[in-house]
Amino acid sequence: MKLATLKTGGRDGQLIVVSRDLSRCQPVPAVARTLQAALDDWQHCVPQLGEVYAALNNGAARHAMPFVEEQCHSPLPRAYQWADGSAYLNHVELVRKARGAELPPSFWTDPLIYQGGSDSFIGPRDPIHALSEDWGIDLEAEVAVITGDLAMGATADECAGAIRLLMLVNDVSLRQLIPGELAKGFGFFQSKPASAFSPVAVTPDELADAWRGCKLHLPLCVEINGQPFGRPNAGEDMTFDFSQLLAHAARTRELEAGSIIGSGTVSNRQGNLHGSSIAHGGVGYCCLAELRMYETIEKGAPQTGFLKFGDSVRIEMLNGDGQSIFGAIEQTVTPHRAAL
Amino acid sequence: MKLATLKTGGRDGQLIVVSRDLSRCQPVPAVARTLQAALDDWQHCVPQLGEVYAALNNGAARHAMPFVEEQCHSPLPRAYQWADGSAYLNHVELVRKARGAELPPSFWTDPLIYQGGSDSFIGPRDPIHALSEDWGIDLEAEVAVITGDLAMGATADECAGAIRLLMLVNDVSLRQLIPGELAKGFGFFQSKPASAFSPVAVTPDELADAWRGCKLHLPLCVEINGQPFGRPNAGEDMTFDFSQLLAHAARTRELEAGSIIGSGTVSNRQGNLHGSSIAHGGVGYCCLAELRMYETIEKGAPQTGFLKFGDSVRIEMLNGDGQSIFGAIEQTVTPHRAAL
Repeated sequence: MKLATLKTGGRDGQLIVVSRDLSRCQPVPAVARTLQAALDDWQHCVPQLGEVYAALNNGAARHAMPFVEEQCHSPLPRAYQWADGSAYLNHVELVRKARGAELPPSFWTDPLIYQGGSDSFIGPRDPIHALSEDWGIDLEAEVAVITGDLAMGATADECAGAIRLLMLVNDVSLRQLIPGELAKGFGFFQSKPASAFSPVAVTPDELADAWRGCKLHLPLCVEINGQPFGRPNAGEDMTFDFSQLLAHAARTRELEAGSIIGSGTVSNRQGNLHGSSIAHGGVGYCCLAELRMYETIEKGAPQTGFLKFGDSVRIEMLNGDGQSIFGAIEQTVTPHRAAL
Repeated sequence: MKLATLKTGGRDGQLIVVSRDLSRCQPVPAVARTLQAALDDWQHCVPQLGEVYAALNNGAARHAMPFVEEQCHSPLPRAYQWADGSAYLNHVELVRKARGAELPPSFWTDPLIYQGGSDSFIGPRDPIHALSEDWGIDLEAEVAVITGDLAMGATADECAGAIRLLMLVNDVSLRQLIPGELAKGFGFFQSKPASAFSPVAVTPDELADAWRGCKLHLPLCVEINGQPFGRPNAGEDMTFDFSQLLAHAARTRELEAGSIIGSGTVSNRQGNLHGSSIAHGGVGYCCLAELRMYETIEKGAPQTGFLKFGDSVRIEMLNGDGQSIFGAIEQTVTPHRAAL
């Protein structure tokens, strides 16, 4: 099943069911007005949402209308939780290596996760607003899950069963604000502004055998300014699967339905800089910071800048038939009106 | 105006208006079913909520019923944002001093704030559940504000005008999990489980001249197991006022209505351990960690343990007439069922 949220209808938008091929959609106000409402009462809503989905796919939906990704907000325009793991340790190892540090052994057994802000996500086709290019604006292309309710101390198996939906994420990061902020010891805050999610959220069954072991085994396609930048496989080199990330998040507190947990920047282990870029036959990168780390390791200093005003980012994932699964995140970096 | 949330009515509870003396209350389903709904449309709702409040206070409310703190959830049972400052630098300085480190000078000009989890708060009279006493269970008594909408880059003045409500908080902390978690560099996650808020949230005008300079100038009263433990004045030694904390939080992203921002553990600068405890004429502490830091500085090691199963905590604030402003947070530490 595929679900999305139109911008109409207030702060939480309007829930729609979307056809598998992303061509048609239908609001379902009699079932649930918002995605959060559906998640709050998932077992009750799923059969009815499933009927609409089946009707949309076989052309029998009575109130179908064209699906337009540009009309979508993030599936949850605001959420009660957004926490982001860092499950691709290649990414973490590179960060450390670029500053001459080793990866602590515990990182292979104890997941990293940070608490993100969830009160106001940006839409998948909305601008990435910033007050200054000097903030070091970067993308982070990731996969995320939306959970049902989970009790404190839930096991990984219990967590696997509570994964309701999957989405793509652009976890926008302000690289130049990170070192100062992390040095203060309390983690990210200003350096992690609002994230954007893919127009469409899909149930795990929609991914067929690409969803196995609580990992999504498909390439994540990233473009910057229309040029291919990354296509690493999100199922490879993921040290902690989503069930393990969720169990870590639920160790000391319950997770309420609608919690979003991210994978961290997708990253595949590769040889070196020239073997890594798409132009040289590699799978490329899901953030500029990673490319800059390869450059630092190989050339002593980063060669590529961060995003500038006017730069655009596109994040998408295709199924085996080349069709978009989640729709595309497509955003342009734009000065916030307070900066003008 | 005073507002609270009954546990009836689903995940977000039922909004009630509470009389100034906390004796009576009235649901307001025709105005807003939940506190978040009122915050989403504050300008529209406030006049109608104010009429009910006036009627409750002068005995003219037609649907008044007794107000029972035990029936309350936290005013926002779940929220789209909970971020906690650390504005009482005495507290931060003590942490550092106990481990022989100086306070970085930038800490006096650049607020510390961490992103907390907000998907499932605990009620003001609900147990503090934990799987193990070995987690080092501690209270942190604080003041918090709930905001309206704030744009990215909002000034401190703009932020001051967007403070809708105030509450008390118990920011439960798991001290023994903090060092390992902070060493990983991404801030708190497992070490900051669900927080609890006071039964009642109040508008700033309710505090009269105790609310000035965006600080709440009244003692915060803390008891542990029925014994006085702390009564520091929340208006003293607060290095950053709430408008400054909000401006810091809004620097790189907007804050959506219903965001909760905390003060950090209230702490007054005092002489030494024996001059600090209430038994010795001081104002005491708002967390056990602070007492343990004084003990470490003076005696080489902490003498007081953290909370054990069965221990209780009470947090309250009284006005000049000795009446409770927010009602009381009163919680007992209890093993989670998964620990039994």
